[in-house]
Amino acid sequence: MKKIKVTVWNEYLHELQSEEIAAIYPEGIHGCIAGFLQAAGMETRTATLRQVDNGLPQDVLDATDVLVWWGHLAHGQVSDEVVDRVQRHVLQGMGLVVLHSGHFSKIFRRMMGTACRLRWREAGEKERLWVVAPSHPIAQGIPETFVIPHHEMYGEPFDIPQDGKIIFQSWFEGGNVFRSGVAFERDRGKVFYFSPGHETFPVYHDPVIQQILGNAVRWAAPSGYVPDRITRQPVSPETIRTENPLKSLDTTALHKS
Amino acid sequence: MKKIKVTVWNEYLHELQSEEIAAIYPEGIHGCIAGFLQAAGMETRTATLRQVDNGLPQDVLDATDVLVWWGHLAHGQVSDEVVDRVQRHVLQGMGLVVLHSGHFSKIFRRMMGTACRLRWREAGEKERLWVVAPSHPIAQGIPETFVIPHHEMYGEPFDIPQDGKIIFQSWFEGGNVFRSGVAFERDRGKVFYFSPGHETFPVYHDPVIQQILGNAVRWAAPSGYVPDRITRQPVSPETIRTENPLKSLDTTALHKS
Amino acid sequence: MKKIKVTVWNEYLHELQSEEIAAIYPEGIHGCIAGFLQAAGMETRTATLRQVDNGLPQDVLDATDVLVWWGHLAHGQVSDEVVDRVQRHVLQGMGLVVLHSGHFSKIFRRMMGTACRLRWREAGEKERLWVVAPSHPIAQGIPETFVIPHHEMYGEPFDIPQDGKIIFQSWFEGGNVFRSGVAFERDRGKVFYFSPGHETFPVYHDPVIQQILGNAVRWAAPSGYVPDRITRQPVSPETIRTENPLKSLDTTALHKS
Amino acid sequence: MKKIKVTVWNEYLHELQSEEIAAIYPEGIHGCIAGFLQAAGMETRTATLRQVDNGLPQDVLDATDVLVWWGHLAHGQVSDEVVDRVQRHVLQGMGLVVLHSGHFSKIFRRMMGTACRLRWREAGEKERLWVVAPSHPIAQGIPETFVIPHHEMYGEPFDIPQDGKIIFQSWFEGGNVFRSGVAFERDRGKVFYFSPGHETFPVYHDPVIQQILGNAVRWAAPSGYVPDRITRQPVSPETIRTENPLKSLDTTALHKS
Repeated sequence: MKKIKVTVWNEYLHELQSEEIAAIYPEGIHGCIAGFLQAAGMETRTATLRQVDNGLPQDVLDATDVLVWWGHLAHGQVSDEVVDRVQRHVLQGMGLVVLHSGHFSKIFRRMMGTACRLRWREAGEKERLWVVAPSHPIAQGIPETFVIPHHEMYGEPFDIPQDGKIIFQSWFEGGNVFRSGVAFERDRGKVFYFSPGHETFPVYHDPVIQQILGNAVRWAAPSGYVPDRITRQPVSPETIRTENPLKSLDTTALHKS
Repeated sequence: MKKIKVTVWNEYLHELQSEEIAAIYPEGIHGCIAGFLQAAGMETRTATLRQVDNGLPQDVLDATDVLVWWGHLAHGQVSDEVVDRVQRHVLQGMGLVVLHSGHFSKIFRRMMGTACRLRWREAGEKERLWVVAPSHPIAQGIPETFVIPHHEMYGEPFDIPQDGKIIFQSWFEGGNVFRSGVAFERDRGKVFYFSPGHETFPVYHDPVIQQILGNAVRWAAPSGYVPDRITRQPVSPETIRTENPLKSLDTTALHKS
Repeated sequence: MKKIKVTVWNEYLHELQSEEIAAIYPEGIHGCIAGFLQAAGMETRTATLRQVDNGLPQDVLDATDVLVWWGHLAHGQVSDEVVDRVQRHVLQGMGLVVLHSGHFSKIFRRMMGTACRLRWREAGEKERLWVVAPSHPIAQGIPETFVIPHHEMYGEPFDIPQDGKIIFQSWFEGGNVFRSGVAFERDRGKVFYFSPGHETFPVYHDPVIQQILGNAVRWAAPSGYVPDRITRQPVSPETIRTENPLKSLDTTALHKS
Repeated sequence: MKKIKVTVWNEYLHELQSEEIAAIYPEGIHGCIAGFLQAAGMETRTATLRQVDNGLPQDVLDATDVLVWWGHLAHGQVSDEVVDRVQRHVLQGMGLVVLHSGHFSKIFRRMMGTACRLRWREAGEKERLWVVAPSHPIAQGIPETFVIPHHEMYGEPFDIPQDGKIIFQSWFEGGNVFRSGVAFERDRGKVFYFSPGHETFPVYHDPVIQQILGNAVRWAAPSGYVPDRITRQPVSPETIRTENPLKSLDTTALHKS
């Protein structure tokens, strides 16, 4: 069976600026995530903000089934051209898994069409997650509820579109709730937002979190569908009316593009 | 302006069986709710389980814009005929506001098509509600977050259909979260589920809760639409093809029923 | 790999009452459908209305991954007990594929919560279907558009819940449109409605229709998830507060049921 | 009662380039639409592509309840700054009604997060629209079905998000179907896409189309909600824990922005 090809993108700034964070993620958050996904049987590579084309040129995306995204300090430094390119790939079938403060990344806001604002508080408080959609593939093998002992609070209201399927909801010690795992479909692509993963806590070392991310990558991977060849010229109405029953019209119609 | 006609239904058993509960709701939960809705400008009546036809014969429903439902101990004693009748009225435009343990009523499960199960615990713990959809009519004038000091816990997972619009989410002291206010549309009717209202706490005396229920009734009230006359005979294809541009076909087509 | 176990249910009245229909489906509509699904690698059985328990006792449903449903003349003769039983199985994960006039069956209306009315006309007119969600599993391998040369018209408005994912839309020669393939999720179960299949036309002999039904059965089959053991007693709040980080609470909480 | 303030935006190129189109819309498509909306009791203004800031500077949008958008030839000439500004206003509550080839405008694609592609054909063929959601405000007073005698064909598949509520569906003489009227909510704003309105046909002179656009503007207008003041500093967990029951926390929490 073919391995899923995952590219883990990280802005990779916190780890270089803070010894404390570097101690938690010595190979970067991207290195940590790529490591456990590889151990779970995926083919992984990493990409970071400071690389040419933010590490995401056309050929890298062409060779990516699922893109995992972690960013926080420097959303504005991702070029619009890269955002356009990633969006195009997602709409054509590439999966996108957006983590934590990536809710505010250009690419997530682009895919949602909204500002993706939320309430937040850094108090190292307890977060308890609940599985809301227990039969969804992303929840397979995950306990009905589990705890992150210390985490940044992300709270409602969170202005995302209504068609997101809620997989996880979070409870915070300080009194907030949050839709912490939400799954979207956009054209041929799948998008999953998952809020855990603040850089000052070892969240991605947690085996439950690792299993969720593995599930999410498998869910988001393209199903193998090959889009029809898309012709470029409009057709005469005569052509479309002369159909053969049960035969496709795909050579006689077109996508506007 | 025409007043909204509200019928408040209550199984009305707890108040007769417990002095403690009767002290909180001396006129019954239905009396309390009808009272504050009337004060808010609505025309109210009440109906209870032990009445003929469970208090909901055809003529009562014909004269009802919005039905409010509170039940707990005796869901099974509501007759299937009444459930059928209420469902028919909702699909034709009557609003339905289902409260607290009414999540498990025959009529709510009928409207949802699911079992409407949830987790629960009676510990008199604090419940904090958050407004998740701040621009929804049901949230107008409601603070972004507010507390019920002591309440029964209702928790996820809650197996309702995905197209419910989430207006409120709850946080519980003991560690649970819940979609506590969810709005559905079913054919011409609107359905709102709102979880606060355990019988041993004075929840319906709370002015914020009262405002939410008033908002919910106004939202659920029919918009005044009069369904087209529905003819009973199929039409010949010739008829439907002889249309006049921009004229309705409503005399030449039919609902299957 | 384990075969998917399919039970094809048919009221099986038309074929016994009409020589013309018996000529199209000599082994019944159920026999035809079971035949091509078996050829596609599934383990099939059939069940019909006149059998004991309408052919669907507990042990049959326990051994069914996906139930296919065709009914038309005798929806009212399916017992409510059977409808309750089928609904319970669907909510626990059994797939349900409802065909053609099954839109008006008790079980489909139960799952939807609406009346499931539509407009119709028998004129043997041309129906053209379009794939609206080309990357959905049910559309795999299906041409973007194809024709049923002669069919009964089913038209909008169709009063189903909004969370159905539209896979196919139909165009009719006489001027109507219809959401002819719609996919729902309800708790752990999946439901697909597909409108083609009027008894007087050889629709189920069409290889494109056969592929769609095979796809639908594979999509609706349960993913293998085993629900958690559900305990029956409420828990004290102390218990739920003494959680171990990252451990499930499933022995200390309960479903209300 | 306060009038709804509508700004009708048109790229205004076709009418200047083609005598045939100018004859249909002597005051521009924007002039025609603004005219009948004004006659319906709204306060209207117009804006066009070639004006400074594409006619949509901050003060114009600040004074707009609903923006109507018609564009076709020059989507790329609308500045990204204007698109950002319109999106911000929509998310804060301004309604947006996007017409015909505006499906491919920067602002509609921004709000949707998808490419918004569709199939099309110019053959002057008959389009029949059906009301799919008869109780929706946008469908009030509209016949269940009506015809545009000659129109450009827009057909499925149309890659918009799943949470759009389908109000109208179209049938085309040549064999296509289309979701021709779809309503979205995005944060505090409402977005309605309506496909009729090709420049070479007098579609906006049709009284049924005019009523639909009037309904759409009234539906999309903001409900009068004033967002809470949003503070800019995070709060300590102690603050959020010291809540007063039933009092808002709005001074102690914040939106991340």
